[in-house]
Amino acid sequence: MFGLNVQRLRREKGLSQEQLSFAAGRTRAYISSVEAGRRNATLDTLEVLATALDVEPKDLITATAPKRHT
Amino acid sequence: MFGLNVQRLRREKGLSQEQLSFAAGRTRAYISSVEAGRRNATLDTLEVLATALDVEPKDLITATAPKRHT
Repeated sequence: MFGLNVQRLRREKGLSQEQLSFAAGRTRAYISSVEAGRRNATLDTLEVLATALDVEPKDLITATAPKRHT
Repeated sequence: MFGLNVQRLRREKGLSQEQLSFAAGRTRAYISSVEAGRRNATLDTLEVLATALDVEPKDLITATAPKRHT
């Protein structure tokens, strides 16, 4: 869920993995592995990514309601 | 904040560190270090502790409003 939230929010903000990695002080490969769910990220990384995405940390670990197509 | 939330919720549930460590599959020393803020816990640990405390993971990383003394 965490990885999918990072990817969704990154895309919503129009950021590339490169841009997010720069803002979060992580490598692009690290961002890619987080989004692919291959990382057991730490709470520090959760905080750093939330700040870089300008969201609350809880937003990255909470399931989002599916968008209803109206 | 995470450690303080774990400690507060553990105490609210009347659990000792030993009991929480047993429920979470971690050592008592680990729980003690988390509560003391000496651990950069991972999201897996956040999930395990939330389950053991019967709360949502976001409850462990969200600042709580100070209880008003009525």
